[in-house]
Amino acid sequence: MPFLLDSFRSISTMGLFRIVLLFSLCSLISRAFSHETVNAHNNHILPRPLILKYPDNLIETQLNQLNEEVKLQCTTWRFAVEANNLNPWKTIPRECLEYVRDYMMGRGYGLDLERVSNEAGVYAKSVELRGDGKDAWIFDIDETLLSNLPYYQEHGYGLEIFNPVEFDKWVEKAMSPAIEASLKLYEEVLGLGFKIFLLTGRSEKQRSITVDNLINAGVRYWDKLILRSSDDHGKLAIIYKSEKRNEMVQEGYRILGNSGDQWSDLLGSPMPSRSFKLPNPMYYIP
Amino acid sequence: MPFLLDSFRSISTMGLFRIVLLFSLCSLISRAFSHETVNAHNNHILPRPLILKYPDNLIETQLNQLNEEVKLQCTTWRFAVEANNLNPWKTIPRECLEYVRDYMMGRGYGLDLERVSNEAGVYAKSVELRGDGKDAWIFDIDETLLSNLPYYQEHGYGLEIFNPVEFDKWVEKAMSPAIEASLKLYEEVLGLGFKIFLLTGRSEKQRSITVDNLINAGVRYWDKLILRSSDDHGKLAIIYKSEKRNEMVQEGYRILGNSGDQWSDLLGSPMPSRSFKLPNPMYYIP
Repeated sequence: MPFLLDSFRSISTMGLFRIVLLFSLCSLISRAFSHETVNAHNNHILPRPLILKYPDNLIETQLNQLNEEVKLQCTTWRFAVEANNLNPWKTIPRECLEYVRDYMMGRGYGLDLERVSNEAGVYAKSVELRGDGKDAWIFDIDETLLSNLPYYQEHGYGLEIFNPVEFDKWVEKAMSPAIEASLKLYEEVLGLGFKIFLLTGRSEKQRSITVDNLINAGVRYWDKLILRSSDDHGKLAIIYKSEKRNEMVQEGYRILGNSGDQWSDLLGSPMPSRSFKLPNPMYYIP
Repeated sequence: MPFLLDSFRSISTMGLFRIVLLFSLCSLISRAFSHETVNAHNNHILPRPLILKYPDNLIETQLNQLNEEVKLQCTTWRFAVEANNLNPWKTIPRECLEYVRDYMMGRGYGLDLERVSNEAGVYAKSVELRGDGKDAWIFDIDETLLSNLPYYQEHGYGLEIFNPVEFDKWVEKAMSPAIEASLKLYEEVLGLGFKIFLLTGRSEKQRSITVDNLINAGVRYWDKLILRSSDDHGKLAIIYKSEKRNEMVQEGYRILGNSGDQWSDLLGSPMPSRSFKLPNPMYYIP
């Protein structure tokens, strides 16, 4: 007992305060992550843990530990996104706002885009084309050929619930820049003689503005640009895109490659020979 | 010109040496990564850059920059693995040995396993079972229910070319421990009333040793354990596993969930309602 008391006495009040604070934060973070699954990623019990006002005297190593923990958990979350393991989600975890921002604005996102473009290019070159005008490659548009990152920068990198009215205003500006790595792949695939299909969840009403934006961004040629007609509204993307691929196959096309940032661009039936998943930790489309 | 000479004079010989060394290492790393794609990930021009003997006087910040660069590139590589973007590969990039080891032996791998198990569990509970004995869930075995990490620890975490003779000796020991997160999912799924199919690339000759290992590891019940028969040898895993799933569907089973660490466990036809990709940066099976 005296030993215990001594031990307690040897910890200063401030030291104890730090330890309690560290444990509370760790437990809050771990609870936030475990609740996330159950609540389908929409309700987060924390206000904004990464921008909590820490007392100035919380020592640097403790802060670093917390940052490392959040980074580790958010990396796990991002892997689950990219491997299609997550159940449907509407916003990124609040705890991962800084992580997602750093990834999108730092080198990580660009490196991942380059990697997928390079791998797709190697594959495209390895494919033997029949040259009968029926060898096809599909590209999705948003977050595949064109980037809406300027919009998402203004809307919390996926932390805000998607607002279709606001987003359509952005689309109407036709200012989405090209994703350079995808543009490179697009040019390679075009040069190899593939037929190019652009298959997007955008509405047929946005055709002319989409054409303008594509051309401004350097995408100047395609065989078919497919947008949602009035019949397609309300369909899940995975259904709508599968139906459109099915039409291509019915018309005799062989879909040899497919590039998209959503698994709903890539899964469903018929499956192309190879699919390439571009990174996108900001939103999920079923 | 005098200005340039002055500038050069102001850099000490040792400083210049450091700068040259830093640039050479950066360029080597970046060349190693860019060659990797072309050479299908098998030929690496570097011996072992992470365990090069740096001169003692290379200052810490420069080393940190190099480490950060390697970490970033290896994270990109790992994402490409998990999102199925890579072309076929036989060994991990030499540059990523430490990265893969740290991931497998640190908390990253465990957290990723827990995440995929939790998400699969949430999905399994959400499925409405018909209860006619035809609701099925498939589990792969190696790196899904059982872990061969003790073997790969001894074989460079995937840096060594796969040696089937050595690996079979390990399998014969029946000492693969359970992957705890998967065991938890297995028990949940079993408890919910799914039929359990274990579908593995192991040979029929390894049936009894596999049964022993499963039971020792806590996997004590299944409806069917499917191994490669002599007819299946030489088939790509994606073909063999698709054929076996097709047989299940022919027998009237509805495959509602599928857990595996390889995309060849999950892709092909017929596709289960949902698939869960467990992490595995150590090897690739086509």
